[in-house]
Amino acid sequence: MSPFTGSATRTADWAHLRVEIADGVATVTLARPEKLNALTFGAYADLRDLLAELSRERSVRALVLAGEGRGFCSGGDVDEIIGATLAMDTAELLDFNRMTGQVVRAIRECPFPVIAAVHGVAAGAGAVLALAADFRIADPSARFAFLFTRVGLSGGDMGAAYLLPRIVGLGHATRLLMLGEPVRAPEAERIGLISELAQEGRADETAAGLARRLADGPALAHAQTKALLTAELDMPLAAAVELDASTQALLMNGEDYAEFHAAFTEKRPPKWRGR
Amino acid sequence: MSPFTGSATRTADWAHLRVEIADGVATVTLARPEKLNALTFGAYADLRDLLAELSRERSVRALVLAGEGRGFCSGGDVDEIIGATLAMDTAELLDFNRMTGQVVRAIRECPFPVIAAVHGVAAGAGAVLALAADFRIADPSARFAFLFTRVGLSGGDMGAAYLLPRIVGLGHATRLLMLGEPVRAPEAERIGLISELAQEGRADETAAGLARRLADGPALAHAQTKALLTAELDMPLAAAVELDASTQALLMNGEDYAEFHAAFTEKRPPKWRGR
Amino acid sequence: MSPFTGSATRTADWAHLRVEIADGVATVTLARPEKLNALTFGAYADLRDLLAELSRERSVRALVLAGEGRGFCSGGDVDEIIGATLAMDTAELLDFNRMTGQVVRAIRECPFPVIAAVHGVAAGAGAVLALAADFRIADPSARFAFLFTRVGLSGGDMGAAYLLPRIVGLGHATRLLMLGEPVRAPEAERIGLISELAQEGRADETAAGLARRLADGPALAHAQTKALLTAELDMPLAAAVELDASTQALLMNGEDYAEFHAAFTEKRPPKWRGR
Repeated sequence: MSPFTGSATRTADWAHLRVEIADGVATVTLARPEKLNALTFGAYADLRDLLAELSRERSVRALVLAGEGRGFCSGGDVDEIIGATLAMDTAELLDFNRMTGQVVRAIRECPFPVIAAVHGVAAGAGAVLALAADFRIADPSARFAFLFTRVGLSGGDMGAAYLLPRIVGLGHATRLLMLGEPVRAPEAERIGLISELAQEGRADETAAGLARRLADGPALAHAQTKALLTAELDMPLAAAVELDASTQALLMNGEDYAEFHAAFTEKRPPKWRGR
Repeated sequence: MSPFTGSATRTADWAHLRVEIADGVATVTLARPEKLNALTFGAYADLRDLLAELSRERSVRALVLAGEGRGFCSGGDVDEIIGATLAMDTAELLDFNRMTGQVVRAIRECPFPVIAAVHGVAAGAGAVLALAADFRIADPSARFAFLFTRVGLSGGDMGAAYLLPRIVGLGHATRLLMLGEPVRAPEAERIGLISELAQEGRADETAAGLARRLADGPALAHAQTKALLTAELDMPLAAAVELDASTQALLMNGEDYAEFHAAFTEKRPPKWRGR
Repeated sequence: MSPFTGSATRTADWAHLRVEIADGVATVTLARPEKLNALTFGAYADLRDLLAELSRERSVRALVLAGEGRGFCSGGDVDEIIGATLAMDTAELLDFNRMTGQVVRAIRECPFPVIAAVHGVAAGAGAVLALAADFRIADPSARFAFLFTRVGLSGGDMGAAYLLPRIVGLGHATRLLMLGEPVRAPEAERIGLISELAQEGRADETAAGLARRLADGPALAHAQTKALLTAELDMPLAAAVELDASTQALLMNGEDYAEFHAAFTEKRPPKWRGR
C-alpha cells in the first residue's frame, strides 16, 4: 500500500467487472458472456475507477484484461448505450464520451503494464480497450473491428485516431477506422496490431504468464518504460533524451540495478524487488 | 450546396485536369498520358483550387485521384518545371514550393476521403500526391519512387518527410526519401504504403467502388474520422481523447446515429444521410 | 573545411574508437573485440566529440559505424559502467546519462547520413546506437536486444522510447523495450527495424558501398533530407509543409539542381558537387 493513500476507501465490490488480485497481478474480466461482454455504463465507470484505485494503491505490478465466453468484448451495448445516448442532452453526451476516454487514458497512464488477452471478437470500444493496452496477446480466433463508422460515429473514439496510427501506421489506421472492417489474427500480426500470437484457446493463459513474469521482474523498470513510451509519443527528441537521462539516473539509485550487478558478479539470477 | 457559399464562383472549366462529379463522387484524372501525367504549374494550381472549391461547396463526399494512360503520375515535368524554376528568383521559388505544399495540405484537410488509384509509375510529386491520400489503391504494376534527391533536392518535398515516416515508419521512410529507389507493389503492400492491392488493371475501378461506398455511407462520420486522424497526428494523447469525446457527442446528435439505431431495432439496413 | 571553424583544434588521436576518413566517408569502428565492443565512458565521450568535430568541419558526407570481431556492440560494459555508476552521486549519474543521450542526438542531428553496419549482437546501448542511425545494414547474424529492463533500468534509454515506436510502431516497441527480448534478422526485417539485409559477413562492405554512393551523390540534398526527417517527427503538418517549401526553394538555388537539369538536357549522368 502506498504511503500516499488518503481518505478514499477501496471499493469493496466491483459489480460490473470480475476482479481478482493475486501476488501483484490483477486479472480483470469482462463477464457478460451472454452479451459477448458488451460494455455498459457501469462497466466503463468501473474500469475507470478500478484503474484509479489500483494506480494510487501501488499494489499491482501487472494487469490482465480478458473477456469471458466466446469473445473479448463486442463494444458498447447497442440497447443500453446507443439507445440511451439517443435520449441524452449535450452535457450528458460529453460526460459519457469523456468517461470512455478516461478509461483509455487510465490504461495508458497507470503505473503498471496492461495486457489484453484477446480471443474472438474485439469490436468497437472493445477494440480500443485492447489498443490502449501495452500488450495484445491474441489467439487465432481474434478479430478486431473498429466499428464506429458503421453506427454513424467517428472512427476516432476513445483515442483510437491517436493510438492506431502510432501502432500500425497512418495507412492501415485510416483504412481500419474509416471502413470498420474486421482484422483477423494473421493480418493483425502482420501489421503489428498484436504483440504475440497465442495458441488457440490460450490467450488468457499466455497473458497470465506474461503478467506473472512482469510482476516478478524489475517492476519499477517496467513501469518507467511504460511511462516513457507513453510520454515520448508526445515529446520532441531533445526532451525525450533528457527525460530518459533523468529516469535512468533515478533508477541507477534504485535497488534493482544494484541487485542486478550483485547477481551478475556472484553469477546468480537477480532477485527483483520492483524498486 | 453549403449555406456558407459566398461570391466566389465555381470554376467552369478545369483546363489542367479532367474532373467529373457524379452523385457525390468526384473523379479527378491527371490526363497528359503522353507525358506520363507529368505535373505542370497549371495542374498544381488546379488541384489546389479544385480542392478548395469542393471543400467549401460540400457537394462531394469522396474523391478519386487517378492517372490516364501508362501510369499514375511521373511527378513534376522536367522541362516545364525544373527548367522554369532555374530561372526563378527566391520569392517565386517559395511561391511555387508553397503551392505544391498547399495541394498536399488540401488533400489532408478536405472534408471527404481521397482515394489515389495507382497503376504504373507514381514518382516524385506524383508519389507524394498518393501519399497524402487517405487510401492508396494500387494494382501490381504500381511503382512508387520519391525521386527528389535524384534531381539534387530534399526528399522532404510537399510534406513527404512528415507523411512517409507516419505511414511506413522512420526506417523505411529514410531509405526511400534519401535514396529515391522505387518501391514496387509487393514491397509497398508489405510496408503499409498501399491500402489495398487491386487486380492488374483494376485500380481505377476498385477506387471507384470504394468511393461509391464511402459516398453512400455515413459521410459525416467518414469526414470526421479523416479530420481526427489528420489532427491527432499532431496532438498529445489527452487532447486527442478530448477531441474524440466532443466529436462523438456531436455525432450522437446527428441523424445517421439515430438512423443506425432505428435500422438495428427494425432489423433493416440503415439509410445513411451523411449528416 | 568549413569557414565556421574557430579556435577548437581537431582531436589528433581517438583513443577509444578507430576512425578512418577517406574521400568524405568516415568509418568509425568500435574496436574492443575481446569485450564484444562493450562501450566505456571513453567510447561514449569519443563518439560525442567526434560527431561534434565532424559536424562543424563539414569534411564528411557519410559515416559508417561498425563493430570489430564477433558482433556490433554488446552495450555498456558491465564492469566499467554498471559497476562504476553504482558509486556515483546524483549529479554524476545525470552527467553520464546525458552524455549517452548526446551521442544519440549527435547521430540524429549531424549533417550527414549515418549507417550502422550490424553483425552479431547489438545490445543495450549498442542497439540504440544502431537505432539512431539513418540506415541499419544488417547481415543474417544480427541480433538486436534492448536489454535495459534486464539490468533493472528503464527501456527508455538514450531516446529509445522516442525512436523505436517511430521506427517499428508502438506495439512492437513496447514489447521490445519492456521485455528486452532479442530480435533476430528476419523479425527485424519484417517489422522495419533494418534498412537492408546484407549477405552473411558482408554488412560492413554493404554499408561502405552505400556510404560511398551517398558521399559521391548530391550530399547537400541528402543532408537536408535527413534534417527534415529528424525535425518533422516533432512538427505539425502545416509547419512541415512550410519547412519543405523553404528547403526546396533553397536547394533550387543550389549547384546540384542546376547540374541535374544540365545533365538531363545533355543526356549524361550528373556530376554531383554536394552543394
